[in-house]
Amino acid sequence: MASLRGSDVVDVRRDLHAHPESGWTEFRTTALVAEELDRLGYRLHLGADALAVDERLGVPSDDEIAGAVRRARDAGAPERYLDRMDGVTGLVAERTYGDGTGPTVGIRVDLDALERPEASEESHRPAREGFASRHPGTMHACGHDGHTAIGVGIARAMADRSDFAGTLKLFFQPAEEGGRGGLPMSLGPHLDDVEYFFALHLGLGNETGTVIAGYDRPLSNAKLDAVFRGESAHAGKAPESGRNALQAAATAIQNLYAIPRHADGATRINVGNVASPNAQNVVSERAELRVEVRGETAALNESMLERARRVLTHAAGMHAVELETELYGKTSTFVSDRAAVDVVAGAASGADGVDEVVRREPIGASEDASFLIDRVQTVGGYGTYIGIGASNVAGHHTARFDIDEAALGVGVDVLVRSVLRCGANGD
Amino acid sequence: MASLRGSDVVDVRRDLHAHPESGWTEFRTTALVAEELDRLGYRLHLGADALAVDERLGVPSDDEIAGAVRRARDAGAPERYLDRMDGVTGLVAERTYGDGTGPTVGIRVDLDALERPEASEESHRPAREGFASRHPGTMHACGHDGHTAIGVGIARAMADRSDFAGTLKLFFQPAEEGGRGGLPMSLGPHLDDVEYFFALHLGLGNETGTVIAGYDRPLSNAKLDAVFRGESAHAGKAPESGRNALQAAATAIQNLYAIPRHADGATRINVGNVASPNAQNVVSERAELRVEVRGETAALNESMLERARRVLTHAAGMHAVELETELYGKTSTFVSDRAAVDVVAGAASGADGVDEVVRREPIGASEDASFLIDRVQTVGGYGTYIGIGASNVAGHHTARFDIDEAALGVGVDVLVRSVLRCGANGD
Amino acid sequence: MASLRGSDVVDVRRDLHAHPESGWTEFRTTALVAEELDRLGYRLHLGADALAVDERLGVPSDDEIAGAVRRARDAGAPERYLDRMDGVTGLVAERTYGDGTGPTVGIRVDLDALERPEASEESHRPAREGFASRHPGTMHACGHDGHTAIGVGIARAMADRSDFAGTLKLFFQPAEEGGRGGLPMSLGPHLDDVEYFFALHLGLGNETGTVIAGYDRPLSNAKLDAVFRGESAHAGKAPESGRNALQAAATAIQNLYAIPRHADGATRINVGNVASPNAQNVVSERAELRVEVRGETAALNESMLERARRVLTHAAGMHAVELETELYGKTSTFVSDRAAVDVVAGAASGADGVDEVVRREPIGASEDASFLIDRVQTVGGYGTYIGIGASNVAGHHTARFDIDEAALGVGVDVLVRSVLRCGANGD
Amino acid sequence: MASLRGSDVVDVRRDLHAHPESGWTEFRTTALVAEELDRLGYRLHLGADALAVDERLGVPSDDEIAGAVRRARDAGAPERYLDRMDGVTGLVAERTYGDGTGPTVGIRVDLDALERPEASEESHRPAREGFASRHPGTMHACGHDGHTAIGVGIARAMADRSDFAGTLKLFFQPAEEGGRGGLPMSLGPHLDDVEYFFALHLGLGNETGTVIAGYDRPLSNAKLDAVFRGESAHAGKAPESGRNALQAAATAIQNLYAIPRHADGATRINVGNVASPNAQNVVSERAELRVEVRGETAALNESMLERARRVLTHAAGMHAVELETELYGKTSTFVSDRAAVDVVAGAASGADGVDEVVRREPIGASEDASFLIDRVQTVGGYGTYIGIGASNVAGHHTARFDIDEAALGVGVDVLVRSVLRCGANGD
Repeated sequence: MASLRGSDVVDVRRDLHAHPESGWTEFRTTALVAEELDRLGYRLHLGADALAVDERLGVPSDDEIAGAVRRARDAGAPERYLDRMDGVTGLVAERTYGDGTGPTVGIRVDLDALERPEASEESHRPAREGFASRHPGTMHACGHDGHTAIGVGIARAMADRSDFAGTLKLFFQPAEEGGRGGLPMSLGPHLDDVEYFFALHLGLGNETGTVIAGYDRPLSNAKLDAVFRGESAHAGKAPESGRNALQAAATAIQNLYAIPRHADGATRINVGNVASPNAQNVVSERAELRVEVRGETAALNESMLERARRVLTHAAGMHAVELETELYGKTSTFVSDRAAVDVVAGAASGADGVDEVVRREPIGASEDASFLIDRVQTVGGYGTYIGIGASNVAGHHTARFDIDEAALGVGVDVLVRSVLRCGANGD
Repeated sequence: MASLRGSDVVDVRRDLHAHPESGWTEFRTTALVAEELDRLGYRLHLGADALAVDERLGVPSDDEIAGAVRRARDAGAPERYLDRMDGVTGLVAERTYGDGTGPTVGIRVDLDALERPEASEESHRPAREGFASRHPGTMHACGHDGHTAIGVGIARAMADRSDFAGTLKLFFQPAEEGGRGGLPMSLGPHLDDVEYFFALHLGLGNETGTVIAGYDRPLSNAKLDAVFRGESAHAGKAPESGRNALQAAATAIQNLYAIPRHADGATRINVGNVASPNAQNVVSERAELRVEVRGETAALNESMLERARRVLTHAAGMHAVELETELYGKTSTFVSDRAAVDVVAGAASGADGVDEVVRREPIGASEDASFLIDRVQTVGGYGTYIGIGASNVAGHHTARFDIDEAALGVGVDVLVRSVLRCGANGD
Repeated sequence: MASLRGSDVVDVRRDLHAHPESGWTEFRTTALVAEELDRLGYRLHLGADALAVDERLGVPSDDEIAGAVRRARDAGAPERYLDRMDGVTGLVAERTYGDGTGPTVGIRVDLDALERPEASEESHRPAREGFASRHPGTMHACGHDGHTAIGVGIARAMADRSDFAGTLKLFFQPAEEGGRGGLPMSLGPHLDDVEYFFALHLGLGNETGTVIAGYDRPLSNAKLDAVFRGESAHAGKAPESGRNALQAAATAIQNLYAIPRHADGATRINVGNVASPNAQNVVSERAELRVEVRGETAALNESMLERARRVLTHAAGMHAVELETELYGKTSTFVSDRAAVDVVAGAASGADGVDEVVRREPIGASEDASFLIDRVQTVGGYGTYIGIGASNVAGHHTARFDIDEAALGVGVDVLVRSVLRCGANGD
Repeated sequence: MASLRGSDVVDVRRDLHAHPESGWTEFRTTALVAEELDRLGYRLHLGADALAVDERLGVPSDDEIAGAVRRARDAGAPERYLDRMDGVTGLVAERTYGDGTGPTVGIRVDLDALERPEASEESHRPAREGFASRHPGTMHACGHDGHTAIGVGIARAMADRSDFAGTLKLFFQPAEEGGRGGLPMSLGPHLDDVEYFFALHLGLGNETGTVIAGYDRPLSNAKLDAVFRGESAHAGKAPESGRNALQAAATAIQNLYAIPRHADGATRINVGNVASPNAQNVVSERAELRVEVRGETAALNESMLERARRVLTHAAGMHAVELETELYGKTSTFVSDRAAVDVVAGAASGADGVDEVVRREPIGASEDASFLIDRVQTVGGYGTYIGIGASNVAGHHTARFDIDEAALGVGVDVLVRSVLRCGANGD
């Protein structure tokens, strides 16, 4: 029976690293965190209680979910919490301190791993030290294992605290990769009273000891899966009788990239994936595309998405094939709030192991914490997206990604100090 | 005042060659022929009486028609026949002989010239001998001047004939180029009692002295004009605000050529013309395409046309521009009837100047006489498309096209003998 | 230890059906046939002795070959023949009869299965009766199991024959699917003295009892694998720094289908397969295409292949990616010889179970027996491609394909009678 | 004989408006300005003495140049200056004042008109008041008539000046439209000692009375003319024998628009013009494209230009047609210098008719004054691009464009005060 009890933040990270779970399948991860926070005395909202379950994007098939639950059970995930999750991952844990008159502070960490294999060479530390992924084809290659461990570390450090009199809410978000979990979590009920909100990321090109108090302006992003369904035919005997899904796909690709630039700001378009597997002599009856658009603003992103749909629709019509599209994931943009950036900058300045604090920086990547920050800002709170430096030997999303575990303690310390500082602010 | 009276068939051809008129503007040509045949005693059906006026394809604008009438008048076309035509070219002339108990025989010649400049070098005989085109940009480069002259020659040779007791109908068809006049003439009333029908063409790669008694199986053909109308924009300041007609055109062109081949037989697709004139920094608001499809059968041609329309429609939709299409011209296919081929082969064998008779050959070009032949076949008559060899220094449709005028007499003789032979057959 | 000894032609076919092996991996099949024909007294030429080993097309990787050998060994293929094959499948078996003064007769059957799953429903006889494929993803869905069984049947029937005084050569060809084995077998040494040559196919839409004595004029065909290799990039952060293999692929696909039609005869072009697997936010670094061209003549086929290469080359250049292409397979065209058709038509007329003999018919499919027939014709022999009717519940290449096993005996009988008739001709 | 003598700045503008001359054909305009400035005592550098004649872009054909000289002569342009120009338009006029110890100040105005028709309705003031274009298809639709008039006004106001002791250089630049004259003028010898440099534009969306002291950051821009030359063929009889220029063009257009966005900043791509005029049944042998790229920096612009050339090259290669490209025009980007902006802002604040002064604003349009500003900055001087508000009824480049002539006096006044202020600065 697995448990996080007694393990320190580095051990927690290594246990999670060895058991990576991709978006919406974080059953073992959620259950272990839930058990530990339950033990520490937090109130738990699990699965469908943590987020707006119907708004989830890019959810795997029922079979895949069932398989993931089985695998979590086999790997010793505590049964009781698995049951309470009822097929939905994610967790919000909260606790009120003292007289509860202080501010409500939210912290968000993400749980999910990537669907990619991990390096197995000796030179890759997780392999050498025995905590590389035990799930072939899945890997914590973006540091979310560390994020979750920091979340657990914060929960422990804040477990019995007399120097804070507000409320702490810890958001353990599923499916950040692809931008699938942020929107439903932002639409859940737990952000509406949050006054200060912190999301964090390890690494991002910063060395251990550097803290970015406020990342800004990621590109908004939407991911669209498209399937063209035509009709097969023998390419030699009856080429005219097929309805060629592959011709539709090629027309779509050419015209997607040709969507015009926009004077209002940066936009992006990409087709990452195309698949149409047939023998050479078969007119393609099915072709799948995975498309991504981005925009400097949400409006630009929407405009790109609308144009992409138009291209796909008419590429299908042109070749008399059917089109199905499904939104796979989505992120928005944000600007971190000055009040929240001030809190973190102040907290980080005095923290152990921090030697450089940057107030603001643009963030290249897309992030679905955008939806949570936006929700907090809408209800009048302050949010910021924090970078915790963590020296790295290899880039994010690569097979040899690893993190400097010294950054975990820094992360816990900066966040705990930030929470306390919010309390002081709130006076 | 121009007139054909007194001129021989070579003079007629040269007069017409010097005054070429493109499709639906053959006012001078029609009027001169009408005057001459009226004089010879034929009953005339002019303009709207000769063909189904509402079924005309690819008709020029009212301004162009009015300009052509003016030009014909200025060039001495007899006023009286111009008036009777009332803006519509084309003529059917008929005459019944003896007791009228013999068969009704139809002969079709075409009147129109091409819109292309004629060579002006001394080495080009029409230039050297002073009968080159006086209408810049228009030229008889396909021999229809000769066809019309042959038609006049037949009318004269058959003017007072006692060795034929049937009815002769001469069809002077406008707008063969582009396949615009055949369909409306086939839908007029004059073919329904025709028992033998002959259409003819000079040249086509055959030397003077050769006669093809039955050409067969041209590709069916349809010509479609398409205009994409979008919205202009400044390509630097607001590229997104345009609706780009040129992108629609490029998408259409790529996908038109990519219409799949057909197992049932040969098909063709071509985009001859594209025009979208703008400065470099203007998002195109208008693009015009001229498209042509062909098929070995009428069904294949229709299938290509339908696919082409689908491509055009969705190319427009993809780029949010409007589409207008108009059928510019159309031809069908045919197989010459054995009975008619026999007549011509027999007639040609004995004719002066004929040294080789080929019974049948496939014809590469498209021909809208197809509709007339089909009409005759539908009502139970026999039709054939005849090749009259005419040695040539340059290919059809080129600037230096000319015909060996010795072929004109051969053409008249073969056709007159064929008419008489029909009469003999009819016994 | 598996063996064909004692099993009748239906049992042989069922054993092979249960153990399908795709092109160039027919180790068990070849070894079992070799053992049986060795036992019957034929001289064997195995593997590299049967065909021009360096001319093989579309050969799987060394790993796949090694795996296939292991699987054959595990399934009881006789070790001794596996060793003699040394990684190359295919067999020519020959025998001379009497004084050897009669003609040399060649018969070709093909050995390979398709890479596609077989139906598992009860309604599918092989599943119901327990001889469905034991190799997931591989299936005899084109009847080659039956062809090989007929080859074995012929060998048995011809084992000790006193009514034939020539030479019999049995060609067991690998890798007919995709057109990969015909060319190397035609370039081997065994066809140069063949005077009569017969290839055969079951089914092809003919009911059991029908024999086509001479199929004609398949389209020539070439299959080309293309890989575009570019450079990956983050589609949001640095879209310009990638070299996009997928854009090259889309450009190629659009322009491949747009290769112009040809006036000399039918052509075909198809892209069956495209694969470029990446996350949505990755600029594609690799895209694979599987392309097929066809032509009514070998020249048309070559012209299509050359044009396809040109399109692929410049699609790569346009997007600054590298291109690798490999010819995967190839077939040619043929016309069956009258002398050989006469033999088969005569033989079939008297055969048991034959109720209709068709002398000639065009064949829709492509066939690499074309190269063998062409070789025989080049050296002065006569070849024909024979259809043996076999009623079917489902089309060739589909999951529920099966054959009426009554056709197997018909096949053996027609071919044996044809061989004898060649002998009689030879007198 | 035409002359500017005695006419005020409004009359000058109206005379030029009635005689618009497009890029590199400004013979009458240059000659009239030259005569007037000669009279006023300026030293003249005409034609090849004014600019680097070999670096001119987008120069019309010799025939067009000769025709334009004739037209200028017919319209009364002074013969003497026409002769000195020797086929090259453009003028630099200079004068040194007092002891010449003050700064050298350069002012640039542009001379050319657009190739577009002018509105002829009564509601269009130039038509109503009789000074609309007398050159069909050419129009001053961007205010350069006003710019030149302002240049003449400045020359007069500075003719005999005792309150300035530096040097004034007036640059009358040809061919600003399309970015064709700025580069050669920047490479001439006259900018190397300029300390303050002012270029100006009327209108640009600003009302009369507004002055923009420093426009900034136009997009860099390059215009490329491309011609694909293939081989014609009959689309029905021999579609394969052509080399289709139109297919190359369509492939190019699709892939030009699909050039990826760039993370370093804004880019643009446009194909404004495409022309391939043929009959429907002709495989296109020639297609022309007019392409424009832009970039936020010169490097981005170059990168787009290089990518566009790559696309064009391989679109040609793919369809086996030849490609010719010619750079038609080019602009760069700039940031106005603080020192120059200060001068203009100070000068404008006290000028008659100015009621609002904006220090800086981004400029949407491209401008080839960029090359002149860059040259001045390179040699250590200060440059700025000035907006002189001029209320307008219709947008730049449209048929009904006109300017509020009250802006002309404002322009002269602001610039003269700026020159004097440079002199004062220089103390």
